[in-house]
Parts: sequence; C-alpha cells; structure tokens
Amino acid sequence: MTAAFSFPIVPRYAEVDQQGVVFHGHYLTWFDEASTAFLDHVGVPVVGFDEWDVDLQTVHAELDYLAPVRWRDDVRVEVRCRSTGRTSFTLGFDVVRRDPDGTEMPTTRGRNVYVVVSTQDWTSRELPIPLRKALTSVAGQGRNAPNGGTVLP
Amino acid sequence: MTAAFSFPIVPRYAEVDQQGVVFHGHYLTWFDEASTAFLDHVGVPVVGFDEWDVDLQTVHAELDYLAPVRWRDDVRVEVRCRSTGRTSFTLGFDVVRRDPDGTEMPTTRGRNVYVVVSTQDWTSRELPIPLRKALTSVAGQGRNAPNGGTVLP
Amino acid sequence: MTAAFSFPIVPRYAEVDQQGVVFHGHYLTWFDEASTAFLDHVGVPVVGFDEWDVDLQTVHAELDYLAPVRWRDDVRVEVRCRSTGRTSFTLGFDVVRRDPDGTEMPTTRGRNVYVVVSTQDWTSRELPIPLRKALTSVAGQGRNAPNGGTVLP
Amino acid sequence: MTAAFSFPIVPRYAEVDQQGVVFHGHYLTWFDEASTAFLDHVGVPVVGFDEWDVDLQTVHAELDYLAPVRWRDDVRVEVRCRSTGRTSFTLGFDVVRRDPDGTEMPTTRGRNVYVVVSTQDWTSRELPIPLRKALTSVAGQGRNAPNGGTVLP
Repeated sequence: MTAAFSFPIVPRYAEVDQQGVVFHGHYLTWFDEASTAFLDHVGVPVVGFDEWDVDLQTVHAELDYLAPVRWRDDVRVEVRCRSTGRTSFTLGFDVVRRDPDGTEMPTTRGRNVYVVVSTQDWTSRELPIPLRKALTSVAGQGRNAPNGGTVLP
Repeated sequence: MTAAFSFPIVPRYAEVDQQGVVFHGHYLTWFDEASTAFLDHVGVPVVGFDEWDVDLQTVHAELDYLAPVRWRDDVRVEVRCRSTGRTSFTLGFDVVRRDPDGTEMPTTRGRNVYVVVSTQDWTSRELPIPLRKALTSVAGQGRNAPNGGTVLP
Repeated sequence: MTAAFSFPIVPRYAEVDQQGVVFHGHYLTWFDEASTAFLDHVGVPVVGFDEWDVDLQTVHAELDYLAPVRWRDDVRVEVRCRSTGRTSFTLGFDVVRRDPDGTEMPTTRGRNVYVVVSTQDWTSRELPIPLRKALTSVAGQGRNAPNGGTVLP
Repeated sequence: MTAAFSFPIVPRYAEVDQQGVVFHGHYLTWFDEASTAFLDHVGVPVVGFDEWDVDLQTVHAELDYLAPVRWRDDVRVEVRCRSTGRTSFTLGFDVVRRDPDGTEMPTTRGRNVYVVVSTQDWTSRELPIPLRKALTSVAGQGRNAPNGGTVLP
C-alpha cells in the first residue's frame, strides 16, 4: 500500500474570510486542483480523456470541517482513491495542517464522486481501462482500508 | 406548512467554467448567501447573533449534481430547514432552473449542517431560543416531510 | 442627459477578507456583472453579439480604492459609458455605498476598456452599428461630462 | 540590477471561463499572492508589519490584457518594484506564459499601488525604514529602468 498523494497548497489571502479562516466553499476548488494533480500523478491526466471521447462530471461533493486553516498556515491536500464503480469513482481529500511545532492534523475532510460521461451525448460511460487500472492500483489507501483493494468510501 | 424560502440568484459569468456550466464549488457560495437571506427572512439575522455571544460554523456541506446551470439561466435557490438539534441545525438547498418554456427543475441539491459556537471559546452552544423557535416554525418543509415538525434530514 | 445605470449588488460573505472589507479583486467580478446588465439595459445584450460574429474582450481594467465596503453594506454599482472608439469602448464604474443615515459615497471607482473582436479570428472589429448607437446615446454621462456626447474617460 | 522575482502559479480550472481563458478578475488574486511572496523574498513579510503597527492597502490596481492564458498553461508572475514614495509604493506584475516550444511571452501586465496605513487610525504612514530599504534595493528592475534607483512607473 503506497502513501496517499500529497498536493501542496498555499491558502490565498482572498480565500480567508472575516472570521480569519478559509471560507469552506474554497475547499471544493482546492479539491478540484488536487484531483487534477492526482490524475496526473497516477498517469491518466484529464486532458488525455479527449482521446477516449469522455470527460468527468463531479456529481457529488461533500466536506466535513474539523479545524480551521488560516492565512499563511502550512497545508497540503492528501488525495486517495476511495472506490471505483462501473462508471464512477470516488476520491477522498484531507486538508492537513502542519503547525510550527511539527504536529499535523486533518482540518477538513472531503469526498467527491466523479462520473465518466461521453463528450458526445453526456451520458455515463464505463471507466476507460487505463483509468480503471490507474485508480484501482491506488484505491483504498485511506486510513481505514485494510488492504489495497477497492473499498467503499 | 409554508412554502420554502426562495432566493433569486444570477449566475455570474466568472462562475461558468470552460464546460459552459457553473463550477460546482460556487454552489457553496450561493448556499451561504441563501442561508443568510433565509435567516433574515425568518427573523433571526446572523448579525444579531452577536447579542447572544455566538456565531455559526458550517461543519458539513454537501451537494448533488442533477443538471447543469449555464450563464444567463433563470435560477433561484430554495431554502428549507431540514432539522434542528441541540446545538446544530441543517438547511437544505435546491438550485431550481426555470426554462423559457416555463418548466422548472432542480439542478443541484445541497445540505449544510451548522453548529452554534460561542464567540468566547468557540465550543458549541445550545441554539438560542429565538433561533430555535424561528427554525422549528419552518423546519421540515422539504418534499418528503409529512408535516411541519422537526425531521431528520 | 439621463442618469447612470444603477446595478444593485449584495456583498457576499465570501468576498470579505480578514481585514473585514471586500477584497479588491472581487470588484472586477462586480463590474463584469454590472457591464452585462448595462448592455441589457441599453438594448444590446451580450448574448446577441453572436449574430454579428463578434464578442467582447476586456483589454484594460483598473480601479481606485476610496473607502471600504463591508459585509451587509448597502451598495450599488453605477455604470456609465465613458467613451467610444472605432473598435473599443470604455465603461466607468462607481461602487456607491449608502449608509443607514442616508449618506452616499463612492467607495471604489473603476474603468474597463472593451475591444470588439471577431469570433472567427479574434482580431478587432468595428463596433456594430446598433452597439455604437446604444453606447453613444448614453456616453459621457459621467460627473464631469458637460454634455451627452462622446468624451474621453 | 538583479532579476525580477518570479512567482510560479498554476491556473486553476475554476478560474477559466467559458471563452476558455482565465477570467481577468482572477489576475488581481494572482498579483496579491505574488506580492505576498515578493515581500517574503525581499525580507519584509507582511505578517511582520504588525510590529510596526501598520498594514497595506491596495489603493490602485490595473491590468492590461495582451494574450490569453488557458488551463494547464505554464505560467509565472514576475514581480518588480516600480517605484517607492513617502507613504506608498508600486509593484509591477507580468504574467508570463511559457509555451511548449520554449517561447515566452507576457500575457497580462498589471500594477498595484500600495499605501502603508496605521492599524490604529487607518491613515497613511511613512514606509517603515526596513521596508523602504528592501524595496529600493530592488526598485526599478523593470524593462525600461536605466538603473536600480527609484523610478516612476
């Protein structure tokens, strides 16, 4: 079981609200960037989906807030494939804050479900084989996953 | 059982991505604005929470994509109180698109869980009574709610 | 000389930074929405530009900060056509805050220069006649404009 | 004369509009992040301004569009100090795109004027000496600057 993919991100000043913490909606943008980098990392970049005449739709997104992220905090987004289905897959995201004393903690946890859709008629399609292979090779890397297999999120 | 609160919103050009649809992360901003207007509507504006030394934290947010919203579409966000708890409450959101032929459809559905926190120590607090009264008077207005009482989301 | 076009806007919670004021970058989004509404108002909606095989490019944008806008402030964006050229035109924007005591003040002033470009080759095109007519009928409505004619910004 | 400070940035999917290019308003967010990194780079991080009881206000911002930036383009923001005044200074920004064939071109140019303000009464203050020293050591690094001294933008 390999480690999760880690995506470094610098909280932007404009993302911090008047409570002094990153506004929760911006995490979906962070997750979007992290998912793009994750797919690059596992060898199936989104821009290559054109060859298969498919694209991705984010059909479900959710997040749970655990602790704040402030401006200039040292954070990263950890990405794991949580599960794969016939036409969909789920990525899990942990925003991890590293404090000056070296302690690390997840601050927000998220989960996106993506459906593969045809760019012809925008209906769902089976995961292209290279995508399925890339995802299942890394699926179930979450904390609670007993092995490297496909697990439910 | 009164009708849901309806919050009109104009999709911004900058919110539409290169697929030609509103980027999903922006719905959380829409829901945030809609929730503020909803609390105004039921008589407990957020700015008044100062008097009770409390504030709101969005501890969970989720959304399900059903259909696209494009630039210049006619949309609104319907807001309903889905449930109230001791220290938290849940609002449900439906982004409803009205097409030129008059048909209406929900396009994205969301749900936020809010916790009331002390502005002194940021730990959770019971819902102030006026807030509880305002929310329970309108709770359970969702499609599946058999009555106007407090329901689980 | 008619009054400027007034575009109401509600500052979003997510637009306010940790200094408690609207982050300056968001004004360009406000101006973009205001310009769309302005073109609707003068009878040449942007979506109709397709018929002329042209689109608009914002080639210059600038803003000057005068005073803050905070969450829940009552604001509007006033839009005026500052000048028209052969292939371009300039809109001026004033973010006006109305305080509870009724006083009004401009808080940020902006100016965008738009070029009409062909959707075929993205090079500049002359202003379509209906667009020119619509703009010159309202050009020069700024505070310093002695008449309703075309003026330099 | 040292080289300009270069700030790498990855265009976010959510920043690209339905014309397929980065929406112009986002450049102000990029410049904001680049300016923060620039001040770190020259040894006067913004968070340290607290010690001097001052903060920065962006009182003017402008940008000129030269060429598009698309999703997955390789870009950076070059930052230069254009000039320093008694209570203000100006940073210049160039968004530079590097194409696969190695050619580089500026795509958008910007300029922000910052005023140093007291955190007590929010009126302007003279540039703290360490800030002035840091800025003048790098001022005038623009293309047209004949020397390293303080120049008008």
